[in-house]
Amino acid sequence: MVRKGWNLGSLVCRVGSPGFYLKMLAQESIVSSPGKVILHGEHAVVHGKVALAVGLNLRTFLRIRCSKHGKVLLNLPNLGTCLNWEVATLQTLKTAFPADSDGPKSPSPEQIAALKVFVGIASESADTENLAVLAFLYLYLSIGAKYRALPSLEIIVWSELPTGAGLGSSAAYNVSMAAALLMAHGAVGFPAQEEAESARWTAEELNLINTWAFQGEKIIHGNPSGVDNAVGTWGGALRYHAGKITSLERVPKLRILLTNTKVPRSTKLLVAGVKDKVLKFPNILNPVLSSIDAISQECERVLKEVNQNPSADCYTVLEELFDINQHHLNVLGVGHPSLDRLCQVTASHGLHSKLTGAGGGGCGITLLRPDVDPAVVEAAKQQLKACGYECWETHIGAPGISLHVFSALREEVQKVFQTFEKAEL
Amino acid sequence: MVRKGWNLGSLVCRVGSPGFYLKMLAQESIVSSPGKVILHGEHAVVHGKVALAVGLNLRTFLRIRCSKHGKVLLNLPNLGTCLNWEVATLQTLKTAFPADSDGPKSPSPEQIAALKVFVGIASESADTENLAVLAFLYLYLSIGAKYRALPSLEIIVWSELPTGAGLGSSAAYNVSMAAALLMAHGAVGFPAQEEAESARWTAEELNLINTWAFQGEKIIHGNPSGVDNAVGTWGGALRYHAGKITSLERVPKLRILLTNTKVPRSTKLLVAGVKDKVLKFPNILNPVLSSIDAISQECERVLKEVNQNPSADCYTVLEELFDINQHHLNVLGVGHPSLDRLCQVTASHGLHSKLTGAGGGGCGITLLRPDVDPAVVEAAKQQLKACGYECWETHIGAPGISLHVFSALREEVQKVFQTFEKAEL
Repeated sequence: MVRKGWNLGSLVCRVGSPGFYLKMLAQESIVSSPGKVILHGEHAVVHGKVALAVGLNLRTFLRIRCSKHGKVLLNLPNLGTCLNWEVATLQTLKTAFPADSDGPKSPSPEQIAALKVFVGIASESADTENLAVLAFLYLYLSIGAKYRALPSLEIIVWSELPTGAGLGSSAAYNVSMAAALLMAHGAVGFPAQEEAESARWTAEELNLINTWAFQGEKIIHGNPSGVDNAVGTWGGALRYHAGKITSLERVPKLRILLTNTKVPRSTKLLVAGVKDKVLKFPNILNPVLSSIDAISQECERVLKEVNQNPSADCYTVLEELFDINQHHLNVLGVGHPSLDRLCQVTASHGLHSKLTGAGGGGCGITLLRPDVDPAVVEAAKQQLKACGYECWETHIGAPGISLHVFSALREEVQKVFQTFEKAEL
Repeated sequence: MVRKGWNLGSLVCRVGSPGFYLKMLAQESIVSSPGKVILHGEHAVVHGKVALAVGLNLRTFLRIRCSKHGKVLLNLPNLGTCLNWEVATLQTLKTAFPADSDGPKSPSPEQIAALKVFVGIASESADTENLAVLAFLYLYLSIGAKYRALPSLEIIVWSELPTGAGLGSSAAYNVSMAAALLMAHGAVGFPAQEEAESARWTAEELNLINTWAFQGEKIIHGNPSGVDNAVGTWGGALRYHAGKITSLERVPKLRILLTNTKVPRSTKLLVAGVKDKVLKFPNILNPVLSSIDAISQECERVLKEVNQNPSADCYTVLEELFDINQHHLNVLGVGHPSLDRLCQVTASHGLHSKLTGAGGGGCGITLLRPDVDPAVVEAAKQQLKACGYECWETHIGAPGISLHVFSALREEVQKVFQTFEKAEL
């Protein structure tokens, strides 16, 4: 494997298998990373139980272009933000980001403070836009320090994911960003795309992308679990247990409705509430956590079975597990009338739902069997929208960070990038 | 203690404590027995967990009169049934009910068959009216055989309890009947009633009443657990665990709304459904059963606390236990949309409910804190009635089988008995 450091206009080479090939550094690359939903085990995971997190096929797309104008442009149209900096100005931050041959390190308080001063953010400011800019600058400067170059770039990020809904939008952003920057530095190659509409990296490269993305997550979340960026990187389904993340093999794609009740909630308060309840009623609540653990494990078993020998029974079990876990989450005190409503509406159409993530509002997922009548799905969607909810028909088990052929992207995504074709600087 | 066998017009004597007294056999006596609700542990009890059953202050009232007309009259106005038999005719059943000095025995298939032939019931007939008549004849003839007399009697039974709603109406009937018949034979005395509006028997006498009532329950239910008749006899609250029934000491009266959704269900099918689910998902369901067990035990602890040191916190815990168990019962698959509706309606008024008994429809109970605003209760009741449900504001922890002073009965109950004053034969 041959890799060279980033130089504007240079060749970045990768020897891939099964055949060897060389590829010109594309003038632009488009990558995407999936969102995340917790299939089972939210909250229980905090108490040492197994959780299953899966890739959500609502994706964050990032186009990176190398340029020669000596500037770095960051365009985040979802957030209404478009910023640019002279590379020369960014060089002034080298004191906080000195050349470093070690691997990724956690962002230091000094680095975060320096970035905030640079961008002009009040020290406690935490809005989505500011955090996204900070995470970008952190990754740009740290990866630049590691590979000893600060390239001139144009980056545009557009996402299908709502922010702040527990769907891993920040991780999809950080994973896409880390992959794009590492690609720009030649730290990861261009995976083979011939004939395919998209391509993925080697396990070693994915590890590198994930590790950098995790640092970006720390900028945004302080002390993240690492699950979201792992899903954004590997996609499919991951088992998370006692801090250890394992990718499940051959995960089926499962159709779902994802519904955002848009009811805001505080994950911290919800997690604290569960802890209080477990302390108040240990003999009542600990068995519930054990039951959730068993649900995650049973779900893992059934996902394998769906892959090997899909049957109507598999989907029935998946539905039953949704129902049971939704009741358990209510027992833990993280339900909400908006989620009850979601479950009732879908149940009235014969569909099974559960909250996903922190609860107390936020999002729910509804399983769609492969043979579900499209009219039923449409009726459920209309009724959910009538409740004021946002609703997506999508699937889980989506692939992780991928490199795309532009022409193979959905028309809507192509249009977004075409809109920003010329008006960037 | 002096007891004499029954003879028409004879004196039945009892030496009570603290003072000794003699009392004429009253020409009529009125007893009542409470209904039952399961506070916690329904279904889990089948799997070896603790259940708490409590006396429900909807009662079955029975008036017994000794007469000299040589007939036995049984009037069940709730069922629209009024039957009478010549004592001489009942004597013909002596072959199936020979004089017997042993204690109560389980009804034999031969006895049941003989009674069915006597009454003219098809062998598999099981409507409420027929079962009530069979249970009466069984108790009348068996107790008569034991005490070697078949008295001439007029019995009228009127109940506040709906039948077939899992509220122990048959047990309240059998307990009242056993107490009245045993009293008529002098097998239990007249408990002291001086100054008091009602009175109860000694533990030994209650045991005898309960054992006979249990035989009546066998006639009606085949293989009953014995919990319903125990509640009907002892009232208050009972702990039922692995076939063992223990009376809890000093149980507080708790105000409740009792709501009958009137949705019919089959207890047998519901119990079988839970068993199937436990077999299908043992690792998921067994912890839920353990959690229900812990709920019953926590509830027992809090009931003691309510008695010793009642606080708002106690009621909050009782509410939380209701909510958690209702979710668990849904997990076990014994919920029903009508019960979800009940819980939602009461929750919208800040009240907490759970199903009670078999589930799948049937009844739910809603806890009323001592300081609840009457307007809130009224609003909840109206809304529940608007759902087509029947709703009673009552209390649990009610006393078991009691002997009443007629003038101290509620006016409504007095009126019922007055209506049937003369028109009985």
